[in-house]
Order: sequence, then C-alpha cells, then structure tokens
Amino acid sequence: MSTLIKKVLIANRGEIAVRIIRTLKDMNIKTVAIYSIVDKESLHTKLADEAICIGPKDIRKSYLNKMQIINAALVTSCDAIHPGFGFLSENASFAKLCEVYNIKFIGPTSKVIDLMGNKNLSKSTMEKAGLPLIPGSKGILESLENAYDIAEKITYPIILKARSGGGGKGMRVVRCKDDLEKSFNTAKKEAENSFGDPEIYMEKYLAKTKHIEVQILADEFNNIIHLGARDCSLQMNHQKLVEEAPAYAICDDLLNKLYEYTKKAVKYISYTNAGTIEYLVDIEEQEVYFMEMNTRIQVEHPVSEMISGIDIVREQVNIASHKKLNYKQNQVNLSGHAIEFRINAYDFDNNFLPSAGKINELNLPGGYGVRIDSGIYQGYEILPFYDSMLMKVIAYASDRNKAISTMKRAMSELIIGGVKTNKKMYEEILEDDNYLKGNIDTSYMESKYKKGV
Amino acid sequence: MSTLIKKVLIANRGEIAVRIIRTLKDMNIKTVAIYSIVDKESLHTKLADEAICIGPKDIRKSYLNKMQIINAALVTSCDAIHPGFGFLSENASFAKLCEVYNIKFIGPTSKVIDLMGNKNLSKSTMEKAGLPLIPGSKGILESLENAYDIAEKITYPIILKARSGGGGKGMRVVRCKDDLEKSFNTAKKEAENSFGDPEIYMEKYLAKTKHIEVQILADEFNNIIHLGARDCSLQMNHQKLVEEAPAYAICDDLLNKLYEYTKKAVKYISYTNAGTIEYLVDIEEQEVYFMEMNTRIQVEHPVSEMISGIDIVREQVNIASHKKLNYKQNQVNLSGHAIEFRINAYDFDNNFLPSAGKINELNLPGGYGVRIDSGIYQGYEILPFYDSMLMKVIAYASDRNKAISTMKRAMSELIIGGVKTNKKMYEEILEDDNYLKGNIDTSYMESKYKKGV
Repeated sequence: MSTLIKKVLIANRGEIAVRIIRTLKDMNIKTVAIYSIVDKESLHTKLADEAICIGPKDIRKSYLNKMQIINAALVTSCDAIHPGFGFLSENASFAKLCEVYNIKFIGPTSKVIDLMGNKNLSKSTMEKAGLPLIPGSKGILESLENAYDIAEKITYPIILKARSGGGGKGMRVVRCKDDLEKSFNTAKKEAENSFGDPEIYMEKYLAKTKHIEVQILADEFNNIIHLGARDCSLQMNHQKLVEEAPAYAICDDLLNKLYEYTKKAVKYISYTNAGTIEYLVDIEEQEVYFMEMNTRIQVEHPVSEMISGIDIVREQVNIASHKKLNYKQNQVNLSGHAIEFRINAYDFDNNFLPSAGKINELNLPGGYGVRIDSGIYQGYEILPFYDSMLMKVIAYASDRNKAISTMKRAMSELIIGGVKTNKKMYEEILEDDNYLKGNIDTSYMESKYKKGV
Repeated sequence: MSTLIKKVLIANRGEIAVRIIRTLKDMNIKTVAIYSIVDKESLHTKLADEAICIGPKDIRKSYLNKMQIINAALVTSCDAIHPGFGFLSENASFAKLCEVYNIKFIGPTSKVIDLMGNKNLSKSTMEKAGLPLIPGSKGILESLENAYDIAEKITYPIILKARSGGGGKGMRVVRCKDDLEKSFNTAKKEAENSFGDPEIYMEKYLAKTKHIEVQILADEFNNIIHLGARDCSLQMNHQKLVEEAPAYAICDDLLNKLYEYTKKAVKYISYTNAGTIEYLVDIEEQEVYFMEMNTRIQVEHPVSEMISGIDIVREQVNIASHKKLNYKQNQVNLSGHAIEFRINAYDFDNNFLPSAGKINELNLPGGYGVRIDSGIYQGYEILPFYDSMLMKVIAYASDRNKAISTMKRAMSELIIGGVKTNKKMYEEILEDDNYLKGNIDTSYMESKYKKGV
C-alpha cells in the first residue's frame, strides 16, 4: 500500500538540496529547507516552500544535529526527510531516529545503512553474497611466515598497508618473494613511527585500475533495476573529479558481470531505494573487485539520469512511498553519453586551497545537451565553512566525443567571478590526450598533478 | 561529395545567434558573429570566435544589409552563412547572393525560398502536390452571385476577408445563406472605409482550429525525415506563445496524414535542409489544411530536439555540407513531452509594451529536464531596437503533465530584474484549467486576454 508523501524536509544544503527540491516541486510535493544561521541566503533556502534555521554554522550543531532536524521536520509537519549526500545521509542512527519518529527516511533502512557502513562487515557480507573482494589477508599479518603464505596464495605483486595508516606511510609494493622480508620489516617500522601502531595487512597490488560503479534502484517488492555503470576513475585525493556514463573502455562481458554482482548483492541484503556499488576494475587482468556500497544518492547521479531518462530522486521518493518501480529492466534504455564536472571554489593554482568570497559575476552555460545543477547565484557569498562544490556541469550527447565537445563549449561559456575555482583544471583535462582517448586509470590525475607537491 | 564547412558566419543576433554558435562549437567549427554598433555587448558577439561590426543600429543598414554581410563573410574567410530566423532567413535574394559568392547558405536553395515565400504561389504549388487548402474563392469575389456560388460549394459557415485587410476589419462570419447578402455588402463597405480597397475574398470558416506543424529534415540525396509535430496553438497577435512537442490532443490518424502530406510536399519541391510545414487543424471536423511553409529554422525547434534527441542545427550544417542525413525515419525515436515558453522583454500589465533596460538581476532555472536558450546575461542592456525575446525556457519530461510541473518549477526559479517581462502571463497560463487539459485552440489566448483591449 502506497503512502502519500506530501511534504519533505531536505536535511542538507547547497547544490544537492537544490537538486532535491527541484524534483519534489516537479512532483507537487511541498519542501522544507534547513539552514545554519550563516546559510540563510543560500539558494536552497530560497527555493524551498519553507526554510527553518536549525543552528549555528558549526555543522555538529546544525547539519549534523539529528534531534534538531527531527524537531524541524515535526514542527513543519513533514512526512519524510531526504538526506542528500554527505552529512547524515549514511548515518544509521539518524535513519533509525526517523523510523522512531515515524518520519519516512528517503533511503534504505537503518539496518542496511549500518551493515554497509561498517567496512569489514560490508566486505564479509558481500563476499557471502558472492562478490569478489581484493585478495589479501583477512585482517593484520600475524608474522613474516604468515605474509609469505598469503603472498604465495594471492600471487605477487602485493601491497603492504598500515592498519592505522594513510597517505602512503607504511605502504610498500612488493613485486617478488625475494623482496618481501625487507619490505615487511620497513613497513612495520614506518607504521610504528608514523602512527604508533606497527600492524600491517596485505592486499593484491592492482597496478592499473578503473573505478566503475553501478547505479541501482530497488523497491519494497523485490524489484531491482540498474541504470548502467559510471566511470569515475579521474580522481584526486580520493575525490572524484570527472564522472561519465556509460562506463567506457570496458568490455560488455565485464559490465554484465558487474550488473549481475550488483543485483545479487542488493537482493542478498534486501536493499531498498537508490544505491551504488563501487568496483575496482583491474584493466590488465580484466578482473573486478567489490570496493564499497553507497547507501544514498551520489554526487554523480545526473550522468545516469541523462543516459537513462530516469529521474533518480523521483524514483527515490516513489520507493519511499511504498510504490513499485516505474520501470522494469527491459524498459531502461541507455543511450548517449554524459559527462559531469564538479566546479569547486578552490584555487587550482595554489595547491587547491579553498576559496571564499562573493559571486560578483556569473554566466551559466546553456543550450542543447547542457544541464546545470547549481547551488549558487550572482551576489551569493561563498562560505568557507562548508563543502566547496558550487555546481555540477553535465554535458550530454549521442557519443563520448560529442559530449566532450559539448563540455568544452560549456566550459568556454562558464564565468564565475569573485572566487577562485577549479575550472582551469577541467579545461586542461579537456585538452589531455589520454583523457580524450579514455586512456586513464584511478592514479592518473595524481601522477599528472601531484608530482611537485 | 561532402564539403567541409570550417567557419560559419551567423547572420543574426541575440538568442538564435547564441543557439547556432553553440552547436557550431560542438562541431568544432569556427564562428563569426555580426553586430550593429549598438549590439557590441550582446552575448552572441562574446561567444563567437570572431565578431565583426556590420553597420549602425538601423537593421536595414546592418542585419538586413546583404552586401555588408556577404563582405563580412568574405573578409573573415567563412565557408558558410547561417541565417537563423527572421532578418534575411527567408530572403531569396540573399540566399542567391550567397550562391553567387560561393558561400554556402545553410538552408534551402534560393529558388525554393522564393517559391514558398510567395503566398499565392506556395498555396497553388502545395495544392498541386496534393495538400488540402482551406476551401474558398481563388482570389477576390467578382460579385454577390459569385459569392453565393462559392459559399454553396464550400458550405456554410464561411468567412469574408478584406484583400488588403487585417485586424478584423472587413471580416464577417456568415453562418447561413440568408445572411450572405447583408454581410457581403457590409464587409465591402468596411474594407473600403478601412483600407481604401473594397475587394474581399471568401474562405471556409473554421471555428475551432489548432496550429500544428511538422518539422522535417531533407538532405540532397532525396532522404527526408520528420521529427514529429508541434502544437503551437497558443498564440496572440499571430505570435506563438507556447509550443509543445509532440502535438497532443490530436489523433494518430490525423498526425500520420500530416506526416504524409509533409513528405509529399517536400519531395514535390525538392526541398533541402530543415523546414516546417504549418497546418490548421479543424478540431471538430477533423480536417487539416495547409497554411504555409517556413524555409528556415524556427523559434520553437528545441521542443522537437528534446523529444527526438536530434540537434536540428547540427543536421542543418551536415546537410549544407552535402552529407547524408544521420538518421533514417525508423531511427527517429520520439519520446517524452517538451514545452517551450518565450520570455520577452515586454510589460504584460501594460498592454504588452516593449521594455528596455539593464538586466540587474538574473537567476536561471536549471536541473533535470530544463534547457535554457538565452541571449542575455546579468549586466546586459536590453535594447529597444530589436526583437524583444530574451530567452526560451524549455521543459522536458516523460509526459505532458510532468513537463508542465517542470515548467512551473522553472518559472518559479526564473528571476529577470531590470526589465519587465511576460513571465507573469506564463504563470497564469500554467494555472489555466483549459491549458492544463489541452483544451485550447488558436483563438484561446486572444479571447482570454484581449477582451478589454
């Protein structure tokens, strides 16, 4: 039985809040924006039917303040809360709180969020569901002996990583058996020195990988569809920079394998609503590995919308209303190619330092094949406190080359004055021969830009 | 043999010039804008690769100055000229001049433009091609006797119209034989008094008509495709206000008839490039009548692009390059519904008087399903000398109701400060029950708004 959702609180800010408000308006559903004191002039507060202040600029006291947000929803008689991405979107206890207060959380159940939010638990669950994990030690290496055994099993090259690590410290790539002992000892020492924790674990070393993810929608009646795969290999500091759909430069057999794995996983955990499973694809070996599941809408969802003609936020709301999916898999027609660029307020020429200031000039690209998902307007003051993403520019055309041309045109029209942005980086990407040929992997951007840093 | 077009002069200004420049950029073709002295700051001059001044503000000395434009194309080494709509777009002698100077005119041949530009000749040609014309006298009524004979033949009700007329003067609807003599005399007298010309002609009176037009593309190898039909019934002062695709509230049989007529007509006159045949559809009688052919791109072409996924300007350039069409008819998949609103700088509350001034605030709608084709930017000074259209807002969704909701959302986001616009009229249309139900005809807007005028 479907439950009518008449009014939704958007527990987010900026671009994604605007994105969600737009579809809710399309569905004739009332919207309530929340904002921190300093965020009163944000576009999302202006576009919503109502806007309610939920605290000071500190996100722990505002956008992460669960009870305050629940109260805001209750006070404004909202039936549901859309969490967007970031903030509380993957916070199981917030979803649980919504359940307790009988406010529909537009997303999966708190139980599933909890399960997929735990790195170890999600991996072991997915392994049980039949998905391939990157081979390696299950936990820390007990001894050098143990390391030899596992390396033998998973075959060289392998990589050693510090349990408490990050940023490359305590990390060693080992290409053959002869090098293992030395690297094992150095890695442990480095880990101890850097993190005060000498424990290390082992994974198969993947030299050239692509980040490929599958977008799914699942209703409460065991219907699951995928909207194809996205390629998000162009990254820096674990931030996606360019996302494209469909995933290109990957063969159909592999893609179909990913679709199968994804549906199997979604079924196994009785997942509902929109979600994404992220995979690493070893290009040379043509192997795929489960990375993680995102139990929310993602920044890059528009590229899937463009190639499928399906509004993912609309489907999220429908599913949350206990409705059946509007599409069966054979009604999902993927066509064309879409590319998304994330325009951020940071200084590309100065080590990507965040930039703040008043937008004193703004010219948005437009016309055939261009979609703008923006959170700003001319005269708006970019705040230094929150995420630096200003807008997403999406180009859509009948094939990848045409989409790239359309994106070039869009970038040539885009003017944002008053803050520094990363537009120049994107213009360089659009001239990069390897990018144009699709000849890139997850390490490409870092090797291109971070040499001198 | 295809001829490469490398550089195109756009013989137009404002929104349509911007629209054309965008696709040329997508195709990696260089662009040259032209501008009158006062138009130097127009968006189209800023977006083109080059811009060249072609005269003073008076359009006869600039945008209609054929030789000056030809010279501009020669001086900048352009291979081709795109005329847009309005100005010289249906000027056969300009197309001829392009032919003489060996500059490709992106449109049909001068001969065809000439043929279709002549009202009488185009009608008789289309009649020969087998298209139905509105029954009536072929030319003026010789006598009352003659009027009785023709009325008998075409059956009542009929309408009498002044040969030199316009604006309803000398116009009389006659519902039965008994009323003809009196109306005949009054109409002639009124025509004489109003226009100094007593001659009148007769047409079958169509009480409730829809304006339906079929978009076609034809290459130089006898390939013709249509991109479906548009409904442009919402008009005022013979200006289209709202255009939609596909044509709704009209049965498939009738639509197919229109497609057949159109292809027959296009073949008969060996038409090439993009074109539109406009029809009047008598809703009650379910009859269709040829009205006219537009031998150029039209303001409302984006709605056909949205439902077909075909960039009409791109196809125009391909056809002009002597290439074959990229699509066969069975590859044209029409899906969804698109609506276009034309945002003009005029004062809706003050008898639609044109408005000029500096755009001091601008917020463009965006997001899923919204396309903006604009000719303005914040800070731009709207000039009183030229067409008042500022931008077109296009909403696209899976069906008409959803497209209407998306358009409502877009209108709620659109802010244009500094000049008066007709946005309010569109907001009223979006609340109009008859519009929402599709229960409108070509006289609807005038009967709604012009009662008191």
